[in-house]
Formats: sequence, C-alpha cells, structure tokens
Amino acid sequence: METFQRLESEVRGYCRNWPVVFDKAVGSHVHDESGRPYLDFFAGAGSLNYGHNNPELKSSLIEYLTDDRIVHSLDAYSVAKREFLKTFDDVILTPRNLDYKVQFPGPAGNNAVEAALKLARKYTGRQTIINFTNGFHGMTLGALAVTGNSMKRGGAGVPLDHVATMPFDNYLDGKTPDFLWLRSLLEDSGSGLDAPAAVIVEAVQGEGGINVASAEWLRGLSELCEEYGILMILDDIQMGCGRTGKFFSFEEAGITPDIVTLSKSISGYGLPMALTLFKRELDVWEPGEHNGTFRGFNPAMVTGTEALRRFWSDDTFAQATLAKGELVEARLAEMAAEHADFGAHVRGRGLARGLAFDAEGGIAKKVAAGCFDRGLLLETSGPEDEVAKLLPPLTTTEEELTAGLDIMADAVRAAVKVPQTA
Amino acid sequence: METFQRLESEVRGYCRNWPVVFDKAVGSHVHDESGRPYLDFFAGAGSLNYGHNNPELKSSLIEYLTDDRIVHSLDAYSVAKREFLKTFDDVILTPRNLDYKVQFPGPAGNNAVEAALKLARKYTGRQTIINFTNGFHGMTLGALAVTGNSMKRGGAGVPLDHVATMPFDNYLDGKTPDFLWLRSLLEDSGSGLDAPAAVIVEAVQGEGGINVASAEWLRGLSELCEEYGILMILDDIQMGCGRTGKFFSFEEAGITPDIVTLSKSISGYGLPMALTLFKRELDVWEPGEHNGTFRGFNPAMVTGTEALRRFWSDDTFAQATLAKGELVEARLAEMAAEHADFGAHVRGRGLARGLAFDAEGGIAKKVAAGCFDRGLLLETSGPEDEVAKLLPPLTTTEEELTAGLDIMADAVRAAVKVPQTA
Amino acid sequence: METFQRLESEVRGYCRNWPVVFDKAVGSHVHDESGRPYLDFFAGAGSLNYGHNNPELKSSLIEYLTDDRIVHSLDAYSVAKREFLKTFDDVILTPRNLDYKVQFPGPAGNNAVEAALKLARKYTGRQTIINFTNGFHGMTLGALAVTGNSMKRGGAGVPLDHVATMPFDNYLDGKTPDFLWLRSLLEDSGSGLDAPAAVIVEAVQGEGGINVASAEWLRGLSELCEEYGILMILDDIQMGCGRTGKFFSFEEAGITPDIVTLSKSISGYGLPMALTLFKRELDVWEPGEHNGTFRGFNPAMVTGTEALRRFWSDDTFAQATLAKGELVEARLAEMAAEHADFGAHVRGRGLARGLAFDAEGGIAKKVAAGCFDRGLLLETSGPEDEVAKLLPPLTTTEEELTAGLDIMADAVRAAVKVPQTA
Amino acid sequence: METFQRLESEVRGYCRNWPVVFDKAVGSHVHDESGRPYLDFFAGAGSLNYGHNNPELKSSLIEYLTDDRIVHSLDAYSVAKREFLKTFDDVILTPRNLDYKVQFPGPAGNNAVEAALKLARKYTGRQTIINFTNGFHGMTLGALAVTGNSMKRGGAGVPLDHVATMPFDNYLDGKTPDFLWLRSLLEDSGSGLDAPAAVIVEAVQGEGGINVASAEWLRGLSELCEEYGILMILDDIQMGCGRTGKFFSFEEAGITPDIVTLSKSISGYGLPMALTLFKRELDVWEPGEHNGTFRGFNPAMVTGTEALRRFWSDDTFAQATLAKGELVEARLAEMAAEHADFGAHVRGRGLARGLAFDAEGGIAKKVAAGCFDRGLLLETSGPEDEVAKLLPPLTTTEEELTAGLDIMADAVRAAVKVPQTA
Repeated sequence: METFQRLESEVRGYCRNWPVVFDKAVGSHVHDESGRPYLDFFAGAGSLNYGHNNPELKSSLIEYLTDDRIVHSLDAYSVAKREFLKTFDDVILTPRNLDYKVQFPGPAGNNAVEAALKLARKYTGRQTIINFTNGFHGMTLGALAVTGNSMKRGGAGVPLDHVATMPFDNYLDGKTPDFLWLRSLLEDSGSGLDAPAAVIVEAVQGEGGINVASAEWLRGLSELCEEYGILMILDDIQMGCGRTGKFFSFEEAGITPDIVTLSKSISGYGLPMALTLFKRELDVWEPGEHNGTFRGFNPAMVTGTEALRRFWSDDTFAQATLAKGELVEARLAEMAAEHADFGAHVRGRGLARGLAFDAEGGIAKKVAAGCFDRGLLLETSGPEDEVAKLLPPLTTTEEELTAGLDIMADAVRAAVKVPQTA
Repeated sequence: METFQRLESEVRGYCRNWPVVFDKAVGSHVHDESGRPYLDFFAGAGSLNYGHNNPELKSSLIEYLTDDRIVHSLDAYSVAKREFLKTFDDVILTPRNLDYKVQFPGPAGNNAVEAALKLARKYTGRQTIINFTNGFHGMTLGALAVTGNSMKRGGAGVPLDHVATMPFDNYLDGKTPDFLWLRSLLEDSGSGLDAPAAVIVEAVQGEGGINVASAEWLRGLSELCEEYGILMILDDIQMGCGRTGKFFSFEEAGITPDIVTLSKSISGYGLPMALTLFKRELDVWEPGEHNGTFRGFNPAMVTGTEALRRFWSDDTFAQATLAKGELVEARLAEMAAEHADFGAHVRGRGLARGLAFDAEGGIAKKVAAGCFDRGLLLETSGPEDEVAKLLPPLTTTEEELTAGLDIMADAVRAAVKVPQTA
Repeated sequence: METFQRLESEVRGYCRNWPVVFDKAVGSHVHDESGRPYLDFFAGAGSLNYGHNNPELKSSLIEYLTDDRIVHSLDAYSVAKREFLKTFDDVILTPRNLDYKVQFPGPAGNNAVEAALKLARKYTGRQTIINFTNGFHGMTLGALAVTGNSMKRGGAGVPLDHVATMPFDNYLDGKTPDFLWLRSLLEDSGSGLDAPAAVIVEAVQGEGGINVASAEWLRGLSELCEEYGILMILDDIQMGCGRTGKFFSFEEAGITPDIVTLSKSISGYGLPMALTLFKRELDVWEPGEHNGTFRGFNPAMVTGTEALRRFWSDDTFAQATLAKGELVEARLAEMAAEHADFGAHVRGRGLARGLAFDAEGGIAKKVAAGCFDRGLLLETSGPEDEVAKLLPPLTTTEEELTAGLDIMADAVRAAVKVPQTA
Repeated sequence: METFQRLESEVRGYCRNWPVVFDKAVGSHVHDESGRPYLDFFAGAGSLNYGHNNPELKSSLIEYLTDDRIVHSLDAYSVAKREFLKTFDDVILTPRNLDYKVQFPGPAGNNAVEAALKLARKYTGRQTIINFTNGFHGMTLGALAVTGNSMKRGGAGVPLDHVATMPFDNYLDGKTPDFLWLRSLLEDSGSGLDAPAAVIVEAVQGEGGINVASAEWLRGLSELCEEYGILMILDDIQMGCGRTGKFFSFEEAGITPDIVTLSKSISGYGLPMALTLFKRELDVWEPGEHNGTFRGFNPAMVTGTEALRRFWSDDTFAQATLAKGELVEARLAEMAAEHADFGAHVRGRGLARGLAFDAEGGIAKKVAAGCFDRGLLLETSGPEDEVAKLLPPLTTTEEELTAGLDIMADAVRAAVKVPQTA
C-alpha cells in the first residue's frame, strides 16, 4: 500500500473506498491479494458486462497471442479487424437495419466522444453541442465540455465552450412539457441559441445517477433533432452492449441516432477499445483527420468478436438481462419501501439500477462502504453521490444477484441507523 | 478488403499506403495474410520499441491471463499495478534522481497530454500553453490545440484556444538567437502574451518531421521556464522508452521537466497504456478530478514491468540503440550525399531517423511506396510529408537494419528517377 | 440620396425604411429636407426622452460651448463632470438610497455593458454570465455575447462564449414556475452550469419585442442572485431615464441591482454618453483598467445635468409619463380588440409600448411603413419584427399622442387589409 | 474634489496625475477652475488635433445647434451626414484614389475596431486576427483581444482568443529579418497558425510607446497580406487625421489598407465619432448587422465636415505639421543627447513624438509630473510608462511648441537628478 501512496498521484479514486489490493477475478467475483473474495456489482463501471475473464473470450485471446498474431496495427488492415467488422455487421448492424460506418477512434470512450463531436461539427459546419444535465461523456477537453459534473469541469483549467445545456428527462418538476425550453429556443431567432450541430445524450445516465430517459422522451428528442437538422449523438459507452437488455440502449425507443459511441464492454474482456458509429452519409472524414496510436488494438477486436458471437447471435442474452433486471428492481423496491423515510426510491432499466436516497446524510455512501465491508463492490453516483449504483455483470447468476442484494439490504439497514452526516 | 471499404470510415489512413491485410508479427517483421513478410521500420509509430510480440513479454502476459488475474480495475489497487510502480521507480526514476509522482490518465497518449495540460493550468492558475511549430500531441481537443498540423486542427470544428505557438529549435533562419522572440514576449508587459501556465515540447518531433532539439536549446528552454515560473511539459510519448538511446529523450540534455508524458512503448507490447509523471509538489489533483475507464489496464502493466526489467536494468540496451542509430545515420548520410540534388539530408537521434527531401516532387512519399513494394514498412512525416521516417524496433538486429537500408537505398534511387509531381 | 448609396456601407438600416433626408427636429417632430414634418414615436430608439433639441438643454449646451469651456477631457476632472456627479447624486441616487459609484465607461451603451461585464467577472473571479432570451445589450463582442438576436450574433464571426441563456419572464408556456430551470441548474453540482458571475437583464426588453418583466419576476431574480452570490446587472440603457415612469425601470419592483447601465437618454439631448453604476463595494477597478477616449465628453454632462434638474427634481414628470402611458395603452387596447384575428395584443409599461401581431404576414412591418407614409415614425421590434414599437418622447403632449395613435390606427387597418406575405 | 472621490469609480486615471479641475480650453491651452493655464501637449490623446474649441468649428457647431437641426438620427439619412460624406469623399478619398465605403460604427474608436474585426472575419470566413506587440485598439472584448497591454487584458475576466501576436517593426534585435517569423508560420502547414482573417496594425503605436513602423516594414506587411489573402486593417484612430503629417499615417508608405479605422480627431472638436472605411468589395454587411445608438451623431459630422474643409483642402496643413515635427524632434534630440546616460532617445513621426528613457527609475513619469507642475500637460506611454509622449495639437504655434519644450527640458533635468525609484 505504501508503494501506491508514495508513487501514485493523489488523483486516484476508487482505491480510497476499497483499500485492498486486488489480484484475481473470475465471473462476478474479484479477490484481493489475501484471497478474500468480493462479489462485484460494479463490473469495471460497465466494462465487464460478461464478467471478469470470461473463459471463452480468454481462450480466444490467449490463442491469438500464442499464435503471434499482430497485436498493434494502428489503422492498417488486419485479419482480426476484418473479423470484428464482419461480425459486428452480421450480428449487430444488419439485424437492426442500421446502415452505420464504423470508426475506430482510439482505445477509450473519450476518443469515441471526441470523434463524434468533431464529425458532427464538421458535417454541419456548426459549433454548438446541446448536452443534458448530469450527462457524463469523458475527461478530455471536448468530452468534458459536454459533461455536467462541476468538480470534473473545474479540472479543465480553461472555459468549456460551445455547449448549451438542456434538462434531461424528468429533470424539472414533472409538469413542464418535454422540450418546452429547447423547442422555444430553436423556434425563436432572438433566443441567443446559436444553431446546434448536435445533441449528445445517454439513454440512461450512469454517472449522473441512473437517470432513465423514457422511450417517449428519446423519440421526442429524435424528432426534434430531425425537424431542426440537428444530429443526434447517442453515447452508449456505459449503457450499450446489453446493459439495459438489448444491445443498444436506444433500441427500446425505436429510434436511430445519427452517431453512436461505444466503448467499455465492446471488447468484452476489459481490453481498451472504442467505436464511433455513424450514418453512412455522415462519413465526411478526410483520411487521417482523426487518429490515435491505439486505435487498432487487435486483441480487443478478437475478444469483441467472440463476445458478439457468444452473446448476441440471438436474443436469449438480452431476455435474461431483462429478467435479472426485474429481479433486482423488485428487491430494490422492497428496500425503498422499507426506507421511504430517507427518500429511498428505485431507478434504472435492465441491469443498470440504482437505489437513490435523500442527498442529506450521505446514506448512499454509507451503503457502499457497508457493502464493501460485507464483501460486495458497488459504487455511488449522482451529483451528490446520493445513489447506490448497481451494475453487476450481465452474466451474474440469479443466486449471485440474490446474495448481493441480501448484503445490500443489510448494508442499507445499517446505514440508515447511524447518525447522519452531511 | 471489401469489408473495410463497406464498413470502416473514410478516416482510415495507413491502410491506404499498405493495402494488404496483416496477420502475424514477430520481432521486426509483420506478415500479411498471404504470408508475405515485411520488415517493419515503423514499429507502430513508436509503440513497438521491443519489436512485435517479444517472447518474454508474451510469456508474462499469457501467464497473467491464464492465471485469471485481474484485467480491468480502473484505479483500484492491484498487484500488477504495484509491481509496475515499484519497478518503474527502481529501474527508471530512482537511478535518475527523478522524484516524480505517477498518474495513470487513461490508455492513450492523448489522455496523458490532456492530464498534463489540466494539471499545469490548475497548478499555476493560468490558461495559456506555449507550444512549438510542428509539435504533435494528439487528437482530443486539449491535445489538438497544442498540435500544429493544420489538417488535423481543421477537424476540430471549433477554435483551438489558449495556446501561443513559438518556433522550435532551428525553425527560423539559423541566425536568430534561440528564444529571442519568446523572451521578448515574456519580458514585455505590453506584448499581449498572457502569462503562460506551461510549455509543451518534444525533444525530437516525430510526426513533425524528425526535428531534433539540441541539448543546448532544451536547456535554454528549461532555464527560461524556471526564470518565468512556467512549467515545462516534455511530451515523450513517441521519443521516450529508449527511442533516442536513454530511456527519456531529455536525459541527454541534463534537464528535469516538471511534467513528462509517456505512452506508446511504455507497455512494451503494443497494449494501450499511458503515464503522466510530474514533480511531487505538482500533485494537486483532487481524487477523481481526472479519470478514465481504461486507466487501470493490468495486462499492459504486466508487460510494461517485464520490459523495464529486461531492457532497462542497466545501460546495455541504450548503448546498443545508440550504436544502431549511428549505423542508420551513416547509411542515410550516404543516401543524402547521393541525392543532394533533391535536397536530401539526414535528421534524427538514436533510432528516430529521417531522410528529408525538398518538399516539391513528393519524393519521400514515393520512397515510402517503393519501400512497401520491396517489403519494407516505413512512413513519411513532416508538414508536407517530405521526410522518410525510420522508427525501427530498437531490437532490430544490425543485419535487419542493413537489409532495410539496402531496400530503402534502392527505393530512393527509383523515386528520384520518375518524373516528379507536386 | 446617391451620395449615401455610393459612399455609405450597406450596413445602414433605418434609412431603408425612412427613405428621406432629415434635417430639423424640435420636440416630438422631425422634418425632412423638403420641410415635411414627421411625428416621432421612435425618439432615437429611446435616446430622446425629452424630445429633440429641448430648448432649455439647448441653452445650457450653447452657453457651455460659447464660453469655451472644456469639451473633451477623458477622465481628468472637470467642472462639468463635478456638476453632473453632484446632481446625479442629489437628484437620483440619494433620494433612492442608492449608494452607487459612477463609472464613465465611454460614450456608448455597449461601453457601459462591457464595463459591467468586466467588473462582474473581475469581482467574482467567475466567467459565465446569465442572459435572457431576446435580450439586447450591444454590438461589441462582450455585449454581443449576451444579446439574443441571431443575425447580429452571426456578425461576430467568432463564437460568443461564457454565457448561459435563461428564459425571460413569460417566455415559456405561462405555467412553468419562474426560475424553475435556473434554480435547478444552480442547486445541482452536476448540471454543467459553471458558477455564474452575474445575470444581465432588462426590466422591459425593447429590441426584444417590448417584453415586460413583472415586478414579481424581477424580485425573484434578485433574490435568487443574492442566494447564490451572483451579481445582478440591470441594463437600463433603453428603459431607464424615465421611459417606464420612474427614473429607473427597476424601481417599481423595489430591487437594488448590483450594477446598472445607463446611456441613450442620460445626456438628454442625444449626445453620446453612458454610465455604469455599481454598489460601492464592487469598485475594485485598477486606475485605467478600463478606459476610452470619449468617456469625458463634457457637453453631454452639461445637458445631462440640466435634464436631471428640469425633469427629476420631483415626481411630476414620472407621473405624467405614467398617465400618458395609460392613454397609449388604452388606444392600443382598442386596436388590439379590433384586430384580434391577427393576434394583436398590447405590451409594455410607461411610454414603452408595443402592439404585437402574429408573426406571419409581416403586419407590424406594414404598420410601420404605413405610419411613415402618414407622417409618423415608429419602428418594429421582436425577433420576427412582429411588434409595432412606440417610444415617443416622454415630453410628447397628449394631443400629439392622440394624433399619432390616430395615424397608427389607420395604418393598422390598412395593413391587415392587404394580402399578407411572410 | 471630494465629489469625485466619493462618487466616481476608482477606474479614473488621468485625474490622478493632474489633480486639478479643468474648466476652460482654447487652442493649445486648458485652464483649471482657479484660472491657471496649462499648455496642452496631450490633446485629448490625439482627439484634438485642431486644438480645443477651434473657433471656426465652434461657429459651425453652434449654428447647427441654434437652428434646431437634427442632433441624433442613428443611421437615418440626414443633411449633415450627406455633407460629411461628400466632403470626406471630395477632400480625402478621391484625391488619394481610395475607393472606400464608409461605415459609421458607433461613436468610439472601439466601435470602429469591432466593426473592422467583424467584417474581416465575415468576409474571409476565418477567425484568427494577427496583432502586433504593444498594439492598442480599445477596451471592448473584441478590441481588447488584439491589444497588448497586460493590465488592460487582465481586466477582461475571460480569455481573449482568436488572436496571434507578431513582432512589431524593430521589436526584436534589429538583426532578425522582417516577417521571418510570420512568413514561416504562413508557409508551413504544420505551424499551428490557423489561416488568419486579417492583421491589425498601427503605423505608429501611440499607447505602445510611440513606436514607428518604417514605410518599408508597412509595405512588406501589405505585400505579405496580399500574398496570403489576409486583410490589412490599419488602425488610424490615434495617428490619423494628420497626426503624422498627411491625413492618413499610412500614406507615406504608399500602401492601401483593406480596412481603416478612424476616430479621435475625425470630428475635429472632441465630439464622439468614429469611422470604419473599407474597400468597396468588402462591403458584405447585412443591413443592421452591426449597429449602435450614437452612430449618427450629427454635430460631430458638422464639425468634422468643417475641419476637413479648413485643414485638408490642400497640403499646407500637412506640411506645417511636418515642419513642426522636425522642430520638436530637434529639441528632443538635444535632450536625448544631454541625458544619454539614462538611455534617453527620441521616437516618432510628425507631431507624434516621444522621449524614451531606460525603464528603470521611472524617469518618464517624473518628467510628466514635473511638466504638470510647470504648467505643461503631457502623458507617458509604453509598457513600462518609459516614454514621455508629446501629442500637441497640430495647430500649436512654433512659439507654443518652443515654450512647451523649454518646460520639458527643465523637467527632464530635474527628473534625472532625484534619486530613482522603480
């Protein structure tokens, strides 16, 4: 531990809540170096939808490495990339009638977001991006400008411009009609809103507090965008790859975003990888106009291909996720009912779920700490860390889910008992 | 090939010059899917300093994966991270008297640059960054703002602000004293230069055309920074990890930058990884103020640890690189002498070398194409692609170097014969 | 006329609607060079609240000039400035318990706004300014950034940053609670709204369409600002100096803005002059930190002093304005009732009044053109020029008002008869 | 005096150096309220080229006012504006073969600059403006961004973007070739300089320290602009209207700028007025795209017309200015020789002259203070206030010039005697 304190920057975060040294990990469990197991309802912040070290993906990966196949190839052509592209097209795009081009923008989600923003601005010749309250899109300057969190914005050290923020679904009082404000601005040439290039939106805001946009709201947004010639960027980095049931979080709403970002679970094994997808007619990039050293990391494409084949060739996996999501929701609803005095209520879709509390008292943080003590990893989210956030691997069994929820129920009971602090 | 054309974005670049599908790779060779070998003097743009699929790194990696050790852990503590930090400290920092803290800012070089810029701005409370002509630092908005290439800047779609550009070493007429302009601006309260937070500089500009900053110039810059309370960020993403001989490209100059960025070859195996290093007193980050999903990619730390141990425990490897660099330089000097009519001249340090031509005629591009036809991969760089750029793996043998340089000499002769085009 | 077409830029505007050459002007009448008189319900866009060439102000001015007293003195002390300051304090500030410092920021309203924005940013150390839909604050880059009109914003040629737009009073559907959106953003650390330095607001938006903020809304805004440490800038350039009755437009609401801008009628004679007023504790300017060549134009101070004495020593003038305002409102209400089919409705306070129509059909523009043909000057305002805007001199007699309104009633009847165009 | 201290903002500046209350002014003399006369070598910072209250201009002005001719008319047509335009064309433009359109951008120099910058950006579709070290163009955000003074820039409270600063003539070591740096940046697609819309430059920098650009340098800049499609904005606000001899300061260099700004002495009487002139083909403004309440201040046009007729119908006045300039230069040269130990040297052209000292010791400020004590008004300029700046009215007689220079010589002798302070 001393090594970390002496050598690693103070910017480190998760380790402060989980002060152990992890070493092994299989499925929904990780183990610290003493061998103690933890049930993982965090899943690498959504990067491990198929669990840790899934054995089939692992086989593919080790075989690829063993055979000395090419690991790093930038955007040269590789057999692994061709396999990935074909599989992604066969298993994901074609069945959904999505005529998207695929960009490999770099290894991280922020690369996918930066590429999306650049492309939207280039294609439209406009600069303003509309983002939404409590949206989270990444830490590089372009992505940070469309992210809501004030602490993270403050880290920029420069103004974050060319963005106009709108209320996410259900952000206001529940009575104000959807898009009343945005539509007013767009219709009024004196509103001061410069013509927007795009909106960037999450179907479910993970970091923002497990805030779910209704299908109706997403459809309304999509229609508004079409009406005003605004591109719709759907950031599916955390909520895509089956987290809410279907592969994309926006399928339920029946919309087709102009641009989609994917990362986190797209490699399926925690390997860095990201994609920016966009409608064919938007592909106005010059060769090399956006690049990045690790945009052709073949092992991630190998595990990604394997994951697509294993989990997405039919809808069995999506159905299972929805069923598990209902199980989780039911248990969280019990907890919410039990602790209604503390403002407890349930949020989420599929296996992205949250138990929110009143911001005062720091209950959610106590719940997370109590879970850790009891062998369960989960994190908090929301602007005041007021939500205990559950992102278990989608491969978590019902038994594991139940075990974890039992732990959580205990931790909640303990958390609301202790004197509260702000 | 049809798969790529149909599905991959037009942004793809390298594949246009090397229209084959790569599959295997060992040491300094890659093979296309038909089995044709290519000698690789490109090395993943500097990401493969130890060659493709180095067997010892490969063993460590496969063993780690086989044992189900944790792959993805964000910034939680892991055994693999501790090993990496300790080794990096023992092998690199301590022997060089560098009291740096280490940040894992995300998987890509641009993450390291974005973190460096943020930290410099936060620490100083200033916004302006001084960059240098033909510098290259990445494609995310913060990094792109300090990058010179106009095509890539144009892709931003928004103005790239908070930056003031200064001439790199030897950029002007060879007579103007170093830092005459920058010093004048700093000394003059009416100059219009807002107080800078930092300079960001490469010791050798790779993408910019293999432009070498002299040790004297780097020392001058370092002293100027100290005099005016400006932080010095040394971007060692492409030129670090031994590319110029010693581990860091700035060691030769005897300076200690305030902030250093590393990526590309730091994992040693082409796995996405990046570091931002900074003097201990600069570590003013709040926990989580900068983050990123793939900042804790353990397999990269495992191969990185192994690479540090294998190659950097003593100075044998650095010495070998310098010797190979001299071999390359000598052969390039012969070519330059032979083709002086075309403005041919040699650039570079260590195993970062270039053969530059007059911009007219596109000779360097023809050289690169001719090399590919003859089974040698190298790329061009410089604002007009006027430099044939050699970044062979540092592990390339003298025989391989000689073989590659023979091919190149042939390709140059052929390139200067054909009628020239602009 | 040829002279103008040949030599004056295409940017000229009003002359296109009033294609005559004006020459003389007294009270509420101007005359073109052929001697034709026009009743003026435009009043220099609010710069001539005391009419053209008011005889008492004229006497003071000519006397000052005749006696060779100093005309131009930058911010040196002058007798004329002292007189103005004392009178402004005695007649305006002290009776209203306003402990304001006075800045002479330059001759134009935009100078007053630019100084206000700078000071608010300097005092708070924050950058974001909250402005309101359809606000109008001037054409220099700082002032333009907080102005809503899209055509004028487009003229900037650069992005207009550091601003967040909020809905003005009654902008939305009439049901959404005031400040619901702004308060939500301020309360939520994840909203993406960087802490604002100030709001800038007009009590009645003149250029924006004679949109009146209710006293209750202004009080709510003032309270919200105080609650969140945000400065309140009240731009009273067009609506101050008695336009709405009392000297300041905000007096009715019983609030004390932190910063107030005045210009247009402050000199009382159409002479260029502007003031920025602010609470004493905000006076953190360095000497000369904001300057401007014509910030000490003494003749304007002379007429300004005379105007303050003549019109503001008691509340007679304010009462008369209110009475005239009611007269105008009553007549406009009749017209609105007569033309309800065209969406006609009345807006305004005091002698800032508008008759708004449905945006389609361009009725208001036809009304303005018909008035001109009939010898009455008035302009349109609002984002679609949908409002016939009445800003008669406050000294206009009831007979003149009635005569003008008779003309207008005619013009409206004629305008709604002709086939409508978009 | 108490009135000012109690009521006027701390931003006031000149009054701190001249702590008396001015009241009357004729020709080259102003009088404080006690009747004490001061010889004025400041001339309203260049706004009073024809002296205070020139009797012929005064007659025209008073006659115009007496006859109740229109004072304020925005951009409606007026007889006074037509007279001004015709006279400006006849006396200034046509004889110089300048086919410029005339914009009335508002009453102040900053309005002229803001309009020039907007137009250049609109016409070219580019954003970057090249400015020069120690340039001064005004205090509104657009103008301030191209101004060098760091204290004034700091007052903005927001970053000042879209600008790249280049060295003014003679700024560097006297050996570096002109435009070496700028040309390198323009020729190099990797330089990081985004394609500039325009340069903005003064032929003689007044506020910047009476720095004279040579005719050769201006020609070189003009040619460079033409070569690269960059517009040349010549800011002649302080140095135009005959200050350097001919009407425009750039005539000597034989160039034709694309855009010219005028203000200060264009009305000839200290009345607020400004012009933006530009080549006919640049007139791409939409009607009303830039506006401003006081852009049609007729009394200023009346005195401006009279001044043009009186002083510019032939070249007598320009010749006289040059002769007086030589007289001043000769006397300053004597002083410089006498005080060479203090780095004294002469700067300037025409009747814009400066005596510069070493920055240490604050000699120039002591000189200015000593002059004031002895009845002479002059100000300092330059980034360190190291230049005693002489801008006497151009109508100052030789006797007055000699009297003033005698005073100054005394004041310099006294200033260098006292112990020096930083």
